Amino acid sequence: MKTKGISILGSTGSIGRNSLRVIEGLGAQAFRVVALSAGRNVRELSEQVARHHPEIVSVESESCAEELRAELKLRNVELPRIMCGEAGLVEAATHEWAEIVISGTVGAVGFVPTLRALEAGKRVALANKETLVMAGELMTRAAQKSGAELMPVDSEHNALHQCLRGEQRAEVRRLILTASGGPFRTSSHAEMQSATVAEAMRHPTWSMGDKITIDCATLMNKGLEVIEARWLFGFDADQIDILVHPESVVHSMIELVDGSVIAQMGVTDMRHAIQYALTYPERHPCDLPTLDLTKLSALHFEAPDMERFPCIALAYRALRTGGTLPAAMNAANEEAVRAFLDERISLTDIPQIIEEVMNEHSVRAVESLDVVLETDKAARALTREKVESKSQKKDAINAVV
Amino acid sequence: MKTKGISILGSTGSIGRNSLRVIEGLGAQAFRVVALSAGRNVRELSEQVARHHPEIVSVESESCAEELRAELKLRNVELPRIMCGEAGLVEAATHEWAEIVISGTVGAVGFVPTLRALEAGKRVALANKETLVMAGELMTRAAQKSGAELMPVDSEHNALHQCLRGEQRAEVRRLILTASGGPFRTSSHAEMQSATVAEAMRHPTWSMGDKITIDCATLMNKGLEVIEARWLFGFDADQIDILVHPESVVHSMIELVDGSVIAQMGVTDMRHAIQYALTYPERHPCDLPTLDLTKLSALHFEAPDMERFPCIALAYRALRTGGTLPAAMNAANEEAVRAFLDERISLTDIPQIIEEVMNEHSVRAVESLDVVLETDKAARALTREKVESKSQKKDAINAVV
Repeated sequence: MKTKGISILGSTGSIGRNSLRVIEGLGAQAFRVVALSAGRNVRELSEQVARHHPEIVSVESESCAEELRAELKLRNVELPRIMCGEAGLVEAATHEWAEIVISGTVGAVGFVPTLRALEAGKRVALANKETLVMAGELMTRAAQKSGAELMPVDSEHNALHQCLRGEQRAEVRRLILTASGGPFRTSSHAEMQSATVAEAMRHPTWSMGDKITIDCATLMNKGLEVIEARWLFGFDADQIDILVHPESVVHSMIELVDGSVIAQMGVTDMRHAIQYALTYPERHPCDLPTLDLTKLSALHFEAPDMERFPCIALAYRALRTGGTLPAAMNAANEEAVRAFLDERISLTDIPQIIEEVMNEHSVRAVESLDVVLETDKAARALTREKVESKSQKKDAINAVV
Repeated sequence: MKTKGISILGSTGSIGRNSLRVIEGLGAQAFRVVALSAGRNVRELSEQVARHHPEIVSVESESCAEELRAELKLRNVELPRIMCGEAGLVEAATHEWAEIVISGTVGAVGFVPTLRALEAGKRVALANKETLVMAGELMTRAAQKSGAELMPVDSEHNALHQCLRGEQRAEVRRLILTASGGPFRTSSHAEMQSATVAEAMRHPTWSMGDKITIDCATLMNKGLEVIEARWLFGFDADQIDILVHPESVVHSMIELVDGSVIAQMGVTDMRHAIQYALTYPERHPCDLPTLDLTKLSALHFEAPDMERFPCIALAYRALRTGGTLPAAMNAANEEAVRAFLDERISLTDIPQIIEEVMNEHSVRAVESLDVVLETDKAARALTREKVESKSQKKDAINAVV
């Protein structure tokens, strides 16, 4: 196997860090890090640069770039090319030596660089699900045109990819995305209404970034995954179902037309999915912990509660309507989640605000990047207004109380 | 799809009956029954003949053949060619119009006809696991030579076949056969010792023939399946594991070198596996019940208890030793199970007798059919002697009590 160049977008996030561990595990013979990009975590990024010697590094701003230069000089590390902002991300995503781009940034920031990587024909290992939610059509069209491969790093979609390996598309009846159910699986609506950030951050099975963890608490994460699955695998909304499975051992499954169900299982360690995305179609041995089913007490499955988790229905609605509605929903969700993390709105305000934004959004066709970016911007602004009004009401109520 | 001819060996057994239902479900456009063979159940066979109009029918003996002729005349059904005994079975198994042979007889009787079908290049849908246990090497060699396909109908091996569809052999770490654990999963050794035939027949999840049901109670069924898996898929004994899974929802699974586990799940209805074996590599829609995971309480997994179920270790020993030992073990098992069903020995006598027979058996290489058949005959005779002596002791004890 020839050494493959890898670019990591979001190298100091959980996907990025785990990707680097996987790459080290697979050995320098297999993969070489040629580009790293991160936001503001300059200290960790500088350690990564010292260890992996990429050709190019990108950070959020010029001041971060300055900081990184200073840090690397202090460590006596030879300076890579250092860039910043979206231009830097795009440069990292399209570096000529990078055969594989790991798109591990959170939220809409990964949108443009991922599209550029696909246009450049890279294999994109996609952990940034918002990218496909915002502009699945654009992304998949770009991939088809250039021959780029989209490999899911999300454990659920990675599982679906594995289940689909030996099957014909027309013989698959439906995809079944499993959901842990999040920390409020068995909570009442009232408990969810008064949930604190700390409570919402208590994810039962996976350890992830803040934003994704809140998405898991509202089950919007699963809604986004339904849209992601539609673009990754080309199935209709009616063929994509959600099944709550609190133990997160079955990462997802498919049902075939003959009634057979194929499931992929594993431990809840995202390095498995990352490695699969890097080595596919090969599978490489790894020393990661493996599943011991005899050590588990039991596996449970239940239908999701659509009433307590309205984000699921919002996502199906966005997918069925199409056009810019998924992008508007995604933007509203990102802003609403941020407001919840800032303790400005309650957890149950999130779907309410998203729904209001979706109702007010005029759906357009996704003809270009600009349409998506405009939608994103406008929906964010509208969401912030709504957050402002909710949060003033909340402050007023708190003042009275 | 061109209409395919099918021959069914053991058409009045549970595999045979279910095969006919599957064939009817798939429609006359897809499959046509050209040969049927059964033992002594002439009444049911005559109904099958009246419905499916095979070219040839085989029964156990000349007197059964006479009976069948009379029955069919009474029903005013045009007579097919009617044969009997092994010659009849072989004729049914090699009929020139049969592209697929369903080997659904129980025990060693299916051995020769299945070999002949493989030599004739048929796709053999194999439910008769003893065939591969007795002479896996001969069978697979014959299949390789003629280009015949061996399709497992056993739900576990069928599941493994499905799990392996998209995978490279070298990238599979192990096969994991699931076992319901049978009716004595949680019983003590003493309870098993005094178990009645009725208790042993209470299989928790599957409804099958008598002999197989007892094999499930002793877990010899799983031992036989380990050997079967070795020949079907070419994995070593060390790469084939057993996992007790009382709900029988996961029909079996594979673990890949990267730690990923692929499982096949379904309802416990053997028609799914039969249909898969007939239509592979295609999957056809069917109106069989499908799995609803939300309706299950929970899935459990546990390691098998090797002490209470010594048949497992016996089977691994037979597989590792090779040669004629698996055939001797299989013969001893069939005779011991029959003796248990006849209430001549206790359930826990079964593995004891098998072990004694294995210890006394002089292992030879499986060079030919004759070696296997001689082994089968000798081991059966030896087993009957041992049954005789046990059962006399039992009678003596009962007389004293």
